[in-house]
Amino acid sequence: MKCALDIEVREVEELYINIDPIQAGGRLTPAAMKSAIAYGDGYSVCDHCLSPFRLDYIRNPPIAQFHADLAAWLRMDEVRVVPGARRGFQAVASTYVEKGDPVILTSLAHYTEFMAIEEAGGVAREIPKDENNHITPDATAEKIEAVIREFKRTPPLLFIDHVDYQYGNVHDVRAIARVAHQYDIPVLLNGAYSVGIMPVDGKALEVDFVVGSGHKSMASPAPSGLVAATAEHAERVFRTTTAKGDVTGRTFGLKEVEMMGCTLMGVTVIGMMASFPHVRERVQRWDREVAHSQTVVDALLSIEGTRVLSDHPRQHTLTRIDTRNSLDKVARTHKKRGYFLSRDLKTRGIVGVIPGSTKVWKFNTYGLTEKQIRHVADSFVEIAREYGLNVS
Amino acid sequence: MKCALDIEVREVEELYINIDPIQAGGRLTPAAMKSAIAYGDGYSVCDHCLSPFRLDYIRNPPIAQFHADLAAWLRMDEVRVVPGARRGFQAVASTYVEKGDPVILTSLAHYTEFMAIEEAGGVAREIPKDENNHITPDATAEKIEAVIREFKRTPPLLFIDHVDYQYGNVHDVRAIARVAHQYDIPVLLNGAYSVGIMPVDGKALEVDFVVGSGHKSMASPAPSGLVAATAEHAERVFRTTTAKGDVTGRTFGLKEVEMMGCTLMGVTVIGMMASFPHVRERVQRWDREVAHSQTVVDALLSIEGTRVLSDHPRQHTLTRIDTRNSLDKVARTHKKRGYFLSRDLKTRGIVGVIPGSTKVWKFNTYGLTEKQIRHVADSFVEIAREYGLNVS
Repeated sequence: MKCALDIEVREVEELYINIDPIQAGGRLTPAAMKSAIAYGDGYSVCDHCLSPFRLDYIRNPPIAQFHADLAAWLRMDEVRVVPGARRGFQAVASTYVEKGDPVILTSLAHYTEFMAIEEAGGVAREIPKDENNHITPDATAEKIEAVIREFKRTPPLLFIDHVDYQYGNVHDVRAIARVAHQYDIPVLLNGAYSVGIMPVDGKALEVDFVVGSGHKSMASPAPSGLVAATAEHAERVFRTTTAKGDVTGRTFGLKEVEMMGCTLMGVTVIGMMASFPHVRERVQRWDREVAHSQTVVDALLSIEGTRVLSDHPRQHTLTRIDTRNSLDKVARTHKKRGYFLSRDLKTRGIVGVIPGSTKVWKFNTYGLTEKQIRHVADSFVEIAREYGLNVS
Repeated sequence: MKCALDIEVREVEELYINIDPIQAGGRLTPAAMKSAIAYGDGYSVCDHCLSPFRLDYIRNPPIAQFHADLAAWLRMDEVRVVPGARRGFQAVASTYVEKGDPVILTSLAHYTEFMAIEEAGGVAREIPKDENNHITPDATAEKIEAVIREFKRTPPLLFIDHVDYQYGNVHDVRAIARVAHQYDIPVLLNGAYSVGIMPVDGKALEVDFVVGSGHKSMASPAPSGLVAATAEHAERVFRTTTAKGDVTGRTFGLKEVEMMGCTLMGVTVIGMMASFPHVRERVQRWDREVAHSQTVVDALLSIEGTRVLSDHPRQHTLTRIDTRNSLDKVARTHKKRGYFLSRDLKTRGIVGVIPGSTKVWKFNTYGLTEKQIRHVADSFVEIAREYGLNVS
């Protein structure tokens, strides 16, 4: 079935249980779907835009209220919606980083943080991870010292991933932020895998910026996301334009330079808003989500030879698993090689494991029902048994 | 009727003829609507993302082909989709403009061009418009000379609006580009009001970059747009990352710095793709759209005292009209003051004129049917007659 001339309808979410590592937290709510239809046109939210003509002042639909709600929810002072978390990184980096400045991130940092730093002319420097794949306050302090020695200046910014995309480990953000603040380095929290799926309290984490992703973890259309700041930093990152036409004398009111004026119109901002009541409620059920994740991990670990590379017990729904000494042994002799796993899962109605992967791979159980979790867990065990692997 | 907890369904396009100046070219096609539902989830287009893991390489859905089709359609060498035209301006400005550089734009330039220049650390300088609200090659040459004298360096970039947002006038881009090229200044065409509604041939216009807006003129959800470049400039603006993790040794393949990796996922890119066959076809009917626009302008001009501030005869569907000596005379004594006009239009099923405006205002007839055009034209005349204005 096609939805346009040469575009097949996507039915993954309708026909399968999807444990794809990056798709789980972004699936739209029914409210977001309905709102996407009603507000599909780009300037649909601009019908009642009044002076000072900026997205976050629009009252109908209640975009202004949404901004205030987001800030309160994250316990930050100011929030703007942006086209994806990366645009949040870019806005902050572009404001704080001068050409040649060193910027601290971690050995588990997402590539978009590197891009934001490079785009601003900065030089990225990674804090090493420890043997448990954690970023520690000590390693942070050591790296900051090393960077100051190398560059003869203090880094203007530090990125820390609340939950890293590689292991789904939750890092000790507050302790790391405290170290950075001893050097007066502002801290940006990359909450792409936390904001919208688990509780995030910017004040408790003692960070200066919180960046979230709408399409990764807030059940919103892409590209969407948010950047939140403390009052101290909001003034700088959300500075308004000082441009003036030399011939016309035009000025541009309250337009914000890093936001380039308005950011998300139509379906993206409305989708975020429509999903928000659900998102705000679902983060309260995080413990259940983590328990679900543990159920599937336990099932995998019951297959002899399997190791979990993420923290164990699990503290997040994104997990990196090592099946080189279990499922991969099947792949070595199977006529479909590593593809047997994704095929056998698909036969059972499960997708999201990269086809061909049987060595080290990731999955995300976020948002699955109890029954779906049970089915996924049982399916892994069944598949292992079918191929004669030992199951404890 | 609500589509989410606190969001009323928007019904403007279903219940009214909408002549809003900025919304006309962005209304979704039915194919884009259907595709928005099928691909609402952010990472929906990533199901089949294979190495080198970049949006514009994805074959299913046919995103790679779409990029090639866009480039051929615009007669440019390379195209990327971006979250709105402003992100195209930003990518180019960030690449070409160093701190303190003067950048040329025009007295009719859109504010987002100013933001892109300011964000890159540049200083905007406007080419004056002539008495007909046109940007001329002579004024361009004079301004370039003046800027070189002032800054002791040649501007690294010149922005020219194909069609300006103030008057909807079509400017002599090729002649202006030729002047700029005499100084080796690359030229960026702001096609927000042309790409997707009228034919645009980058080669014939002799420009180095073409920027278009999906939600303004390509019947696509927001934020969406494109930036196209000639081969010569594509290499620079679409340069791939050189970042490398100092601890991990990680590199980031073909990720493009200014794009920050992938740009539009889900509903935005799919919407552009779904509407594209229609968009490509509709630009061929531009003459009819302009004739429609002229019909409404003629009706307005038949009301004694009305002036058209845009080029006349019209060459575009966006028009700036001066009714200070016609409809505004009614406003002066009407108990609803200037609001009578929007109210009387709404009674006749027409929206999009800013409520309260009866002095100088804009409208856009793009995409209306013959019958709708007739109704809009007749409505203005009827309203004028009802209030005793002379109609010729």
